[in-house]
Amino acid sequence: MSQIYKRVLGVDPGLTRCGVGVVEGAIGSPLTLIGVGVILTPPDAALELRLLQLESELEEWIALHKPTVIAVERVFSQHNVRTVMGTAQAAGIALLVAARRNIPVMMHTPSEVKAAVTGSGRANKVQVAEMVKRLLNLESIPKPVDSTDALALAICHIWRGGANTKIAEAVAIEKSRLAKLVKK
Amino acid sequence: MSQIYKRVLGVDPGLTRCGVGVVEGAIGSPLTLIGVGVILTPPDAALELRLLQLESELEEWIALHKPTVIAVERVFSQHNVRTVMGTAQAAGIALLVAARRNIPVMMHTPSEVKAAVTGSGRANKVQVAEMVKRLLNLESIPKPVDSTDALALAICHIWRGGANTKIAEAVAIEKSRLAKLVKK
Repeated sequence: MSQIYKRVLGVDPGLTRCGVGVVEGAIGSPLTLIGVGVILTPPDAALELRLLQLESELEEWIALHKPTVIAVERVFSQHNVRTVMGTAQAAGIALLVAARRNIPVMMHTPSEVKAAVTGSGRANKVQVAEMVKRLLNLESIPKPVDSTDALALAICHIWRGGANTKIAEAVAIEKSRLAKLVKK
Repeated sequence: MSQIYKRVLGVDPGLTRCGVGVVEGAIGSPLTLIGVGVILTPPDAALELRLLQLESELEEWIALHKPTVIAVERVFSQHNVRTVMGTAQAAGIALLVAARRNIPVMMHTPSEVKAAVTGSGRANKVQVAEMVKRLLNLESIPKPVDSTDALALAICHIWRGGANTKIAEAVAIEKSRLAKLVKK
């Protein structure tokens, strides 16, 4: 089976803290940590400036690490209704930045990510962080801890990949081509 | 009292239908309708492409009408939790586009808008539309009807303006200057 190497930017969306992690690998091959971090925007700044800062820092991550795919955690509304608005907006910015650069983007739910990385959709944060450390062959859990969710997301994307992702990417490219045609 | 003329782009955020309306005027002067419409994005398209389309059409509205201020309806989470995510993301795009171009942006709640235009925070859609028609001295209610909310938002912004808005604008400019400094 031929291996499809991917460089995935995982984005764990948030307005105050947005986790970002880049992992390279293919199904059945070792995974490599390329970069990890958290984008912080000041809670007391105007919302529009926080969104603008998030956009520009995501652009920088993309320019630096040139991901072939972006994986964004799917936001659910059952969480705290106050924070969900900011989380939805942060996720929206990540999707927008990906679409603008024609980078295929996919969303995965938190339980899909946990299941992919630990085998259980109900794993806790520590279990996820521990597995991320092992899977990336690291000496210790990456800091800050919230960034491990972004790495888990990237790993999930690589492993759920294969044929399905290839199809999804082809569809994404086609959709974007059609969108351009539709826009006259 | 010197009159401060404003050209306000009102944005009634939505993913499937995003109302946009541009009104020019000052407190105590007649209001002028500059443009009105609805940005539609296909519900069956990928979310990232819908956000990208919304961004580019908002950019076109701004390029065409050169608003001095953008007013966005403040999204509340007590609505349908499903649609609120898309609405929050659409509002986020409007805020982002404004911040990127350094155009002051403010949010008003639906009841502030209704109260400003009809005198009652609990006015219904028809009452708002009727008042928008009268205030802009139009022969009939602008179509499509959802676009009247965007016009009401723009009118609300002009009327709530004066000193407060001048201060808010000064603060916005200062914040944006500081944000640039903070970003090294």
